[in-house]
Amino acid sequence: MTEKSSHFEPRVLTGDRPTGKLHLGHYLGSIENRLKYQDKYPGSFLYMIADVQALTDNAENPEKVRANVVEVAKDNIAAGMDPTKTTMFIQSMVPEIAELTIFFLNLVTVARLERNPTVKDEMKQKGFGTSVPAGFFMYPVSQAADILFCKGNIVPVGEDQKPMIEQANEIAEKFNRIYGAEIFPHVEAVIPDEEHRRVMGLDGNAKMSKSLNNAIYLADSDDVLKEKVMSAYTDPNHVHKDDPGTVEGNVVFSYLDFFDPNKSEVEELKAQYRKGGLGDVELKNRLYDVLRNIIAPIRERREALNDDEVMNILLEGTKRAREIATATMGEVREAMKINY
Amino acid sequence: MTEKSSHFEPRVLTGDRPTGKLHLGHYLGSIENRLKYQDKYPGSFLYMIADVQALTDNAENPEKVRANVVEVAKDNIAAGMDPTKTTMFIQSMVPEIAELTIFFLNLVTVARLERNPTVKDEMKQKGFGTSVPAGFFMYPVSQAADILFCKGNIVPVGEDQKPMIEQANEIAEKFNRIYGAEIFPHVEAVIPDEEHRRVMGLDGNAKMSKSLNNAIYLADSDDVLKEKVMSAYTDPNHVHKDDPGTVEGNVVFSYLDFFDPNKSEVEELKAQYRKGGLGDVELKNRLYDVLRNIIAPIRERREALNDDEVMNILLEGTKRAREIATATMGEVREAMKINY
Repeated sequence: MTEKSSHFEPRVLTGDRPTGKLHLGHYLGSIENRLKYQDKYPGSFLYMIADVQALTDNAENPEKVRANVVEVAKDNIAAGMDPTKTTMFIQSMVPEIAELTIFFLNLVTVARLERNPTVKDEMKQKGFGTSVPAGFFMYPVSQAADILFCKGNIVPVGEDQKPMIEQANEIAEKFNRIYGAEIFPHVEAVIPDEEHRRVMGLDGNAKMSKSLNNAIYLADSDDVLKEKVMSAYTDPNHVHKDDPGTVEGNVVFSYLDFFDPNKSEVEELKAQYRKGGLGDVELKNRLYDVLRNIIAPIRERREALNDDEVMNILLEGTKRAREIATATMGEVREAMKINY
Repeated sequence: MTEKSSHFEPRVLTGDRPTGKLHLGHYLGSIENRLKYQDKYPGSFLYMIADVQALTDNAENPEKVRANVVEVAKDNIAAGMDPTKTTMFIQSMVPEIAELTIFFLNLVTVARLERNPTVKDEMKQKGFGTSVPAGFFMYPVSQAADILFCKGNIVPVGEDQKPMIEQANEIAEKFNRIYGAEIFPHVEAVIPDEEHRRVMGLDGNAKMSKSLNNAIYLADSDDVLKEKVMSAYTDPNHVHKDDPGTVEGNVVFSYLDFFDPNKSEVEELKAQYRKGGLGDVELKNRLYDVLRNIIAPIRERREALNDDEVMNILLEGTKRAREIATATMGEVREAMKINY
């Protein structure tokens, strides 16, 4: 935290786009982190299911977004998110975020949005060109409102999302300056440390992702998990057990590095693999056990969750989020002189 | 009305940006028209004070916007707007408009916004370039939400605003198509007929406007009115009473054409002026009487209005507007599958 934000209470904001179930990459990259925050800041940690944001590039697929709202909530709760400590809410049910977005849009130029590197990259990735939906183009502003409606000042994000936080800070500072009120805090982007870096895909691709079809989901059954682990990319030149094998870029070792609690045994296995004499199947069986120990309890808790119960948790959390939103908007309206 | 909108009840939406008091140009161009609509569609006529829109290019001047909210309401009521027939409301107090704008932004591309001729012209006029605020750039989308939140299908606008209505219709059609529901009507732009064309400025400029400092306000006192009429541009070559004068481009005759109830006398005066023998002062005295007959009763009604009373009218109207907004948003949320 910087000095600037010192008069604001710490408040953590994070979220998921409800476009698919969570996989191991999410688990390592964000969920583990979330569980730390909810224990460090109980009652001051907000978790948003970003359905409005998901609709910016899924406008024609509302069913998909809808179906995944409960699914991602389940993933998080099953992985340890505790609704008594964390305010879990649905973005579309907090209309104050939309209002704030509209007011923030006046404080950002089109040129500044065009320069946002995250938006540039994602537009390229999605092949949008100038046919980019306006909602997608201006989503950094929407994201600033997501964070600032609750005066979030600690936001765990990936390295690639840092420009979004910079833009949120520009907006917060401009708002505070123009309207002469210290309403919004300085937002701190918290980048996960090295050990939480990106998990590679089963196929050896640098990124695990749904669209690449190379992910292990938190909801996968034992059978599916086994099948996926057995299909994992290893060393294509390590054909026979006795052949020397390569550890670098080998998905199985990469996962063991992340998830196997016994680091020294993993180092011994690496040495053995390099020398020759350790078969892929034996190694994969170990990985299966390691991952099963993580995933099976999550899956079991997940299966015990009832849709209505989860929706009730979200509705309760949304109520609390709206209380926070209403308080912030009261200040915003007073500062903007639209408090009639 | 086209066939397309036939299953929608007629609903008229119009409004003013609260950035200054109304002048004779507004009176002729829109207020007279409004009074007809409120009598034709009592209870189905909505009048919006567009403070959110005014803030898109007045973000740093919230006091100005605030102060003018009551002023424009007074102008309209004094000129004959009847709150028992017309729902008068404040845009910023209907947050559903902001929500709808956010959803609509997903249905419009940046390229399409760049092509909007009205925005292009206004950006040029205001000298924005790429430093245009994002809120201003996307205000056609915001305006679509202003109209469609209440299913407005009759919108009186100037010729230059036609592209805005086209864009609103594109959005309405796309929304209905994607979400498989006939929620939004086809919007009809009603362009004022020839006799309601633009009123020229006192200085002979083609447009009466506050920024050109050439306007006669509905709130002007008799003294101010007299002074302004006496300063009106006539024929610079008509120096002596007996000189032949030119009627075309002569502000005094232009106003008499619009406002003098006795058209045949005006024609006789024109003939006399052309021939010579009619002095500017005599002519201007007539114009003063004509305008005073229009403005003085409005001003007197205006002066009798109390700020609190007017604000109460707006708050009541806003309540009604929100009921309409809530009903529409219920349908929108159901169609978009975000009705949790």
